[in-house]
Amino acid sequence: MTRYVFQFEEGNGQDRKRLGGKGAGLAEMSRIGLPVPPGFTITTEACNQYQAEGRVPDGLMAEVWDHLARLESKLRSKLGDPDRPLLVSVRSGAPISMPGMMDTVLNLGLNPETTEGLGRQTGNRRFALDSYRRFIQMFGNVVMHMEHSEFEHILEDVKASSHITLDTELTESNLETVIARYKDLVEKRTGRAFPDNPKEQLEMAILAVFDSWRNPRAIVYRRLNKIPDDLGTAVNVQSMVFGNMGDTSATGVLFTRNPNTGEPGMYGEYLTNAQGEDVVAGIRTPKSIDQMAEEMPKTYQELVEVCRLLETHYHDMQDIEFTVQQETLYVLQTRSGKRTARAAVKIAVDMAEEGVVTKEEAIRRQDPAQVQRLLYRQIDPEAAVDLLAQGLPASPGAASGKVVFTADEAEARGQAGEAVILVRPETTPDDIHGIVAAQGVLTSRGGMTSHAAIVARGMGKPAVTGCEAVKISLQDETFQVDGRVIAKDTVVTIDGGTGRVMLGQVPTVEPELSEEFTKLLNWADKVRRLRVHANADTPEDAAKAREFGATGVGLCRTEHMFMGQDRLPVVQAMILAETLEERETALKELLPMQEGDFYGILKAMDGYPVTIRLLDPPLHEFLPDIQDTEAALRRAQEADNSREVERLEAVLRRARSLFEFNPMLGFRGVRLGIVYPEIYAMQARAIFQAQAALLKEGLHPEVEVMIPLVGIPAELSRMKDLVAEVNQAVADEAHVALPYKIGTMIEVPRAALVAGEIAEHAEFFSFGTNDLTQTTFGYSRDDAESKFLPTYLADKILKENPFMVLDRDGVGRLIQIAVQDGRTTRSELKVGICGEHGGDPASIAFCHQVGLNYVSCSPFRVPVARLAAAQAALE
Amino acid sequence: MTRYVFQFEEGNGQDRKRLGGKGAGLAEMSRIGLPVPPGFTITTEACNQYQAEGRVPDGLMAEVWDHLARLESKLRSKLGDPDRPLLVSVRSGAPISMPGMMDTVLNLGLNPETTEGLGRQTGNRRFALDSYRRFIQMFGNVVMHMEHSEFEHILEDVKASSHITLDTELTESNLETVIARYKDLVEKRTGRAFPDNPKEQLEMAILAVFDSWRNPRAIVYRRLNKIPDDLGTAVNVQSMVFGNMGDTSATGVLFTRNPNTGEPGMYGEYLTNAQGEDVVAGIRTPKSIDQMAEEMPKTYQELVEVCRLLETHYHDMQDIEFTVQQETLYVLQTRSGKRTARAAVKIAVDMAEEGVVTKEEAIRRQDPAQVQRLLYRQIDPEAAVDLLAQGLPASPGAASGKVVFTADEAEARGQAGEAVILVRPETTPDDIHGIVAAQGVLTSRGGMTSHAAIVARGMGKPAVTGCEAVKISLQDETFQVDGRVIAKDTVVTIDGGTGRVMLGQVPTVEPELSEEFTKLLNWADKVRRLRVHANADTPEDAAKAREFGATGVGLCRTEHMFMGQDRLPVVQAMILAETLEERETALKELLPMQEGDFYGILKAMDGYPVTIRLLDPPLHEFLPDIQDTEAALRRAQEADNSREVERLEAVLRRARSLFEFNPMLGFRGVRLGIVYPEIYAMQARAIFQAQAALLKEGLHPEVEVMIPLVGIPAELSRMKDLVAEVNQAVADEAHVALPYKIGTMIEVPRAALVAGEIAEHAEFFSFGTNDLTQTTFGYSRDDAESKFLPTYLADKILKENPFMVLDRDGVGRLIQIAVQDGRTTRSELKVGICGEHGGDPASIAFCHQVGLNYVSCSPFRVPVARLAAAQAALE
Repeated sequence: MTRYVFQFEEGNGQDRKRLGGKGAGLAEMSRIGLPVPPGFTITTEACNQYQAEGRVPDGLMAEVWDHLARLESKLRSKLGDPDRPLLVSVRSGAPISMPGMMDTVLNLGLNPETTEGLGRQTGNRRFALDSYRRFIQMFGNVVMHMEHSEFEHILEDVKASSHITLDTELTESNLETVIARYKDLVEKRTGRAFPDNPKEQLEMAILAVFDSWRNPRAIVYRRLNKIPDDLGTAVNVQSMVFGNMGDTSATGVLFTRNPNTGEPGMYGEYLTNAQGEDVVAGIRTPKSIDQMAEEMPKTYQELVEVCRLLETHYHDMQDIEFTVQQETLYVLQTRSGKRTARAAVKIAVDMAEEGVVTKEEAIRRQDPAQVQRLLYRQIDPEAAVDLLAQGLPASPGAASGKVVFTADEAEARGQAGEAVILVRPETTPDDIHGIVAAQGVLTSRGGMTSHAAIVARGMGKPAVTGCEAVKISLQDETFQVDGRVIAKDTVVTIDGGTGRVMLGQVPTVEPELSEEFTKLLNWADKVRRLRVHANADTPEDAAKAREFGATGVGLCRTEHMFMGQDRLPVVQAMILAETLEERETALKELLPMQEGDFYGILKAMDGYPVTIRLLDPPLHEFLPDIQDTEAALRRAQEADNSREVERLEAVLRRARSLFEFNPMLGFRGVRLGIVYPEIYAMQARAIFQAQAALLKEGLHPEVEVMIPLVGIPAELSRMKDLVAEVNQAVADEAHVALPYKIGTMIEVPRAALVAGEIAEHAEFFSFGTNDLTQTTFGYSRDDAESKFLPTYLADKILKENPFMVLDRDGVGRLIQIAVQDGRTTRSELKVGICGEHGGDPASIAFCHQVGLNYVSCSPFRVPVARLAAAQAALE
Repeated sequence: MTRYVFQFEEGNGQDRKRLGGKGAGLAEMSRIGLPVPPGFTITTEACNQYQAEGRVPDGLMAEVWDHLARLESKLRSKLGDPDRPLLVSVRSGAPISMPGMMDTVLNLGLNPETTEGLGRQTGNRRFALDSYRRFIQMFGNVVMHMEHSEFEHILEDVKASSHITLDTELTESNLETVIARYKDLVEKRTGRAFPDNPKEQLEMAILAVFDSWRNPRAIVYRRLNKIPDDLGTAVNVQSMVFGNMGDTSATGVLFTRNPNTGEPGMYGEYLTNAQGEDVVAGIRTPKSIDQMAEEMPKTYQELVEVCRLLETHYHDMQDIEFTVQQETLYVLQTRSGKRTARAAVKIAVDMAEEGVVTKEEAIRRQDPAQVQRLLYRQIDPEAAVDLLAQGLPASPGAASGKVVFTADEAEARGQAGEAVILVRPETTPDDIHGIVAAQGVLTSRGGMTSHAAIVARGMGKPAVTGCEAVKISLQDETFQVDGRVIAKDTVVTIDGGTGRVMLGQVPTVEPELSEEFTKLLNWADKVRRLRVHANADTPEDAAKAREFGATGVGLCRTEHMFMGQDRLPVVQAMILAETLEERETALKELLPMQEGDFYGILKAMDGYPVTIRLLDPPLHEFLPDIQDTEAALRRAQEADNSREVERLEAVLRRARSLFEFNPMLGFRGVRLGIVYPEIYAMQARAIFQAQAALLKEGLHPEVEVMIPLVGIPAELSRMKDLVAEVNQAVADEAHVALPYKIGTMIEVPRAALVAGEIAEHAEFFSFGTNDLTQTTFGYSRDDAESKFLPTYLADKILKENPFMVLDRDGVGRLIQIAVQDGRTTRSELKVGICGEHGGDPASIAFCHQVGLNYVSCSPFRVPVARLAAAQAALE
């Protein structure tokens, strides 16, 4: 004969099919020795049999009574016994979780006699009456199918006539009235008295749970979630326990370790002679769990053992609720404990060192997004803030400073040591010098991948973007928000991790690479196959990246170097040159500056590869705005300044001739190198001269020259020849061999599609996934983020913003084609990624899967990339 | 023993290896019975033997003398015979053509005696002396390695001392002086007398040709062209013939058919008692070949037979040079004759009907680019023109009209029946109404694929773009070119096939679909597998396309319909709407207009599919220019026109909010449909209402709804549901089933990469290769053409402009991926192309190869597409 009922400790924790999810969980906890309130599970087979036959299966109730008796003897109490009343909960539990779809009955076993008994036991008759009142209401609703609202009306009525507003103000007498009226209601509506016999209550409740399998919302839920209708539900009958049965009883919550710091040892609080609600309600002040060592030493020791058991079993820090009923400890619930980023790292490392988890598990357990937060300065969680507005959390970290409205002022005052926040409607490449010198950036327009956001993230600088509540008047040098006017020089604080903009200087917490974090990353380094490089345009960035564990610079952009205040006039002269000679004169002036740039970066990353990308942006980005120039020209004409007129006319002519309808798809990257080879030649010379100087100092510069935006093999082969020619010339001059690698960015779809041919000329590929995403989707990032992408994400047309998380189906497929074809041509081809995705954990996992050699990301993302690369390797 | 020498008629025309290319050709012509001047070929084996041994191979010269004797007897003349002197040419001829790399000697056999004999024979002693003078110079240079310039100095010297400037003015006496001084020079420089023995001349010349195989320029040429060094060269010894040996001699050129009209029958001219040069020099007026029927009837009949032989053998119309030497006809050269487009078609069709070629050959033989010219009005080739400037030939055809400078004026005057040419710095979509009404377009900026060029080509309207010599002053309504000022209303003529801009009304020739062309296209239709549809936005275009043989509309763009003068205000109101209700009100007003548009097109293409693309361009294209609006706003503010100020402020706000950095990658296509579904819903309703009306008239509208710019499967599935909903609603209202197909354009790389999933929702794909090329390469067409593409094409970084000829490696690979993945999902998927490439023959060949179902191009390209599709099928 089939057995339908199992005590929790008899059950097989893996048998979710028969015991249901909850029943299997209770079995599991019982099995590992946790003191869960005892009880038993009626299997799904019983439910299915009941559904099939339309009646209670033969022998089921006999088995239930048998198991109830075992429960009673275990607990030395008895269902319906006025002196030691046993109370139970009855809950459904299907093999696949269907949250909220089926029903629960608590405190089953109460009737007038046992209620008085419970009152005596707990010394709290009001509590017992309230429990009885709630039981009638729940049982009436769930088992007897009455309207919940009808009970509520009675309760409201009694409160009103007693001039009471809160349930907690109900007196014992009020509650007796409520109970009497509830029972009358039940009899009136159902034609039968509310059952006082606890066994009758139990049988009715079990059948009600069986029936709930077929209630309409459960049926709809199963259809939506494709859950078979023939699974059935199990029924769990569990004893109720009470922490309010005198001074040997208690209730509390605790973490198995400190969730803020990660320090080992229990962390929590409890109340003696109290219910769980009392701890939460905060009416009485709970005691620290440490006090229990003295007050209830036996229970304390039991808890220590429970914590050990739990961590050993779940391999993680747990957050538990417990109750002590007359010296007996019960664990009511356990789950993984929430924790701070700092604690997460320490707990994982400690547990690995304690042998509770393996190092691999310690690595796997980290949430990279959470860990990332460790690397940014944060608002002190204790601080009071005056919130001005909420924008997009564009680049994490917190910063305070005086509001300024131009990049030039930000630069001047920032370099003078003042803390300033640059506030702009949006930023452009012209503003970079200001962003560099500011503590952080706030813009009223632009999305998470606007220029300001990208540049700031690249620099690890806090930014809040798209903060539309902020109305900027550049003319008045003020911004308004909700009618408050914030003038220049007012101190504000921004939190780029949450998007908050706050008035005044808000205290912040310093970032740290803790000892445990360093240890964890070192373990990660042993596991990962992907190398981690950094995107760095300055020696400072390169040094920071190295400190964070980068073993190379995967992308050194040379255009930011052109933007410096000392360079820009020379760069503009080069662009305005009307002959090759004029251009070469300007380039000669730039050469020593560029050489210095490369010298510094190669030195900071000495011994590791540095991938230097030759000039990429369209030349018009270095010229002043056309409309501004027109205005300046009008002024010069009015002032009769003929020399200035002539100069401005030349600028305008050139700017107009360089104007582009779609600069993103325009005259940039290698296209510049083909039309103006002298520019790339100058840059190559600067690189090799820097390399020669370092070699002579006995250092080990590893040079990689990267040609951007290649889409045609011939583009690369031409530039490869040009670079080789310059290399030879510099080597001859310096009398030293200057080894280097040449490669290209793959950032337009065609490059991926003809990668097999490109690899004939390239020693490495670097996927520029920012641009590759734009061209593959046909999106202009700035336009898309402010126009239609928000709708796409809200409507789930896209699951993720493809500029944040690499699009595997489209962009990813191109990457796979390029890797495969490229390696077919050149098996030792080195392949990496240097778009923003290089710092995104999900994208890093993809890079690992498709066999890239490295990822390159901003210095502040290097630690997380090391971790994510290890996690990917452990998948 | 190896045989080294073959008479032309003994040789195997296929044996290029032994006879060389020229020798095999001479053998072939002799073999088919053409009267080529007789001669013999010394094989490459002789040359190789000579190179290997360093001396003349045994027996070679004996064989040469033997063959010389056969030649002499054939011609009844003799090398060195003063009465009947045989003269020969000696030419190299390698198995692989090496043009100009090796040497030639003409008139070999001349010496003082034979020169006098030639003078007697031709009755022209001066000619004989001049021939001798030239022979010494050529032989001296080629065989005896003397400097050409030294001979020239003597010639100049004699001319100077006789006060002569032209060679033709040299008297017999002058020539005798030159000959004497040439011979002295030879003796002085080489230490030996110039050889007078013709046999000695011949042996020396043969060895000189052998030696020329190893001259430095031949060696370099072979290295560059990867031609093996051991092929060797053959030597051709051919008798010289003379058309100036009296009145039974003649020389002439003829085409086997009329090269202008294609009419059958010889077409050419000749001179009796003359040399070839005399015909070319135009000193005497040649006679029509027809006259020869009377004057030299036997030769005429021989020529008729030669023409028949040639056409039968070469399967094409030939252009020949011939000489009659004392009644004997010799064909000196034959090659395929150049011909007009009209003649090409007629000749091919006639020859097919005559059985000379198959219909397939007639089709294959056409040059589609040439045939295309048949479909455009052309400048009368006889007309005298006053050329103003030369621009890019952006859209073929010729047109004359009065110059106007605004689209509005072009529209007003064009609709009033005036012929106008719209002259603009460049055009934008706002100018379309002007282009429609003008005869043609002239712009000073923009490339072959600028807006003006594309729109004009689409309309089959002549356009000259990028005509930078034209300096336009919109303010003065004039343009200047080379200092000439052309005012408004001046009549000019443009030729979009050549890029010429001419002053005044130049006569033109009407295009025609001749009887033969129609016949040829009908043959092509039987051969081709690709269907040919047309891109048509109006009923007129659809009708024109149908007339040209299109069997469907592959792309009906709905945005041009929004640009009409009556629509634009409503469209703008729709865009400026601040609520859904306001927008729907404007859309309701547009609905009947759109319904009318679709009704007309579906009716014009009744029975064939019409693929209607829902709105594609970004909304800001329908709003006025931001700067113009700012200026208007300033004026309205000054005029205190508060209502206008308010209106303009609203326009500005919206225009600014819609502003995009890269409109090509912006908020357009399906992205509009997702964010503003009401726009697409209106268009769908207009389509289905038109369909319902036509069905009720008993017609057969075949509706295909195309969603543009899809890159994500969910985009299409949403729009598919929307269209289906509207379809059901209209069908219910009209009580008629409205069958239709739904599909998408594949125009961003991601669409091709996820085509397998997109095909779950699409019944057809249409490759929008204009945009797909832009996004695959990462090019903005307008920017690329004016910035770097010219350099790329000049430097051969790209072989073709990828906007004109489909890029097979990149874009083509995406197309192949999409076709394959799409058909894997849905085997009956219909796939076509609707970019400009749909009218390009090379691209059509690719479409055929990768298995597309149809190509769609502008109506004026339909005939050529039919032809190209047939040619592709015949490959």
